[in-house]
Amino acid sequence: MHSHDEHKNPWTIIDATTIYDNNWVSLIHHNVLNPAGGKGIYGKVHFKNKAIGVVAVDAEMNTYMVGQYRFPINQYSWEIPEGGCPIELDSLETAKRELLEETGLKADNWLRLGDAYLSNSVSDEYAEYFLATGLSQHAAEPEETEQLVVKKMPLKEVFAMVNDGRIKDALSILPLVKLELMLLKGEITL
Amino acid sequence: MHSHDEHKNPWTIIDATTIYDNNWVSLIHHNVLNPAGGKGIYGKVHFKNKAIGVVAVDAEMNTYMVGQYRFPINQYSWEIPEGGCPIELDSLETAKRELLEETGLKADNWLRLGDAYLSNSVSDEYAEYFLATGLSQHAAEPEETEQLVVKKMPLKEVFAMVNDGRIKDALSILPLVKLELMLLKGEITL
Repeated sequence: MHSHDEHKNPWTIIDATTIYDNNWVSLIHHNVLNPAGGKGIYGKVHFKNKAIGVVAVDAEMNTYMVGQYRFPINQYSWEIPEGGCPIELDSLETAKRELLEETGLKADNWLRLGDAYLSNSVSDEYAEYFLATGLSQHAAEPEETEQLVVKKMPLKEVFAMVNDGRIKDALSILPLVKLELMLLKGEITL
Repeated sequence: MHSHDEHKNPWTIIDATTIYDNNWVSLIHHNVLNPAGGKGIYGKVHFKNKAIGVVAVDAEMNTYMVGQYRFPINQYSWEIPEGGCPIELDSLETAKRELLEETGLKADNWLRLGDAYLSNSVSDEYAEYFLATGLSQHAAEPEETEQLVVKKMPLKEVFAMVNDGRIKDALSILPLVKLELMLLKGEITL
């Protein structure tokens, strides 16, 4: 369904200036010609890490949720275990490390559930998400700057929390809804 | 499941400086004490608009997809009709306006499918998404800076594009997967 022309970048960059840079993101201001040929600007937020999410499900159909206060939205948020992975490194290795750090879990089986661009009108943030099963409990190793609460909850209850809006984090909703869909369609058994 | 303490903001803001500001976003650099009490920084991207998405389905179970080149990811992207809504304005009114502007469609019936924070580790971007049915065709009014391609496609094919990863835009995936789940569960009929 894609023609050659559709794939051509219709934006022209006149100049690009890095306005801000920290360990996680940079902001680049561009003077551009927009697709209609008019002068414009584009402020792009570049992410230095991929966002990795893990839905971990045990033999009793429980999953593990992480609660934390999210500074940017000024709200407490219940989420699946998540972490950042430098762009050039392997996403699955980060998924394994983050799951262990935040919950103390190791998993025998890993399945890639999907990927997405989280906010493509402003940033290049890319996310990948995984299902982890065959769990065994080890010692958690939380980062000292984090204040995380981990709860084991029935997967069914977490699906309900997504569906009624108690879970509002996109990187949690995306793999949880995908998993519920796969279970309903019989594409996977747990 | 939330205790009072969990809801308390564990971050202390020492100072906040606006580093960048355009019509759509601003970037605020904070010096902070992190939840462990250590000195740190937090760069937050503030969005001036809510992100609104619309899944429009006609009587023959077709939906309307919009193709455009997304500057931040440097890729062509197929998405549901989307637009920005100033925080203080009504999301549904924006949904109606964006659907008409991009596709020329008006809808008799609107259903709110859900909402999410798209990237809560860095930004406060908030999204709401709707289902529009009872469609009638009018004249589209695309913004002159945009170069959009609109395609009417079977909803079933779009579900397949989400599931196999051809659609990678989070704001498109979230309502499409929610709708597929509701249809499978019999919570809605179209």
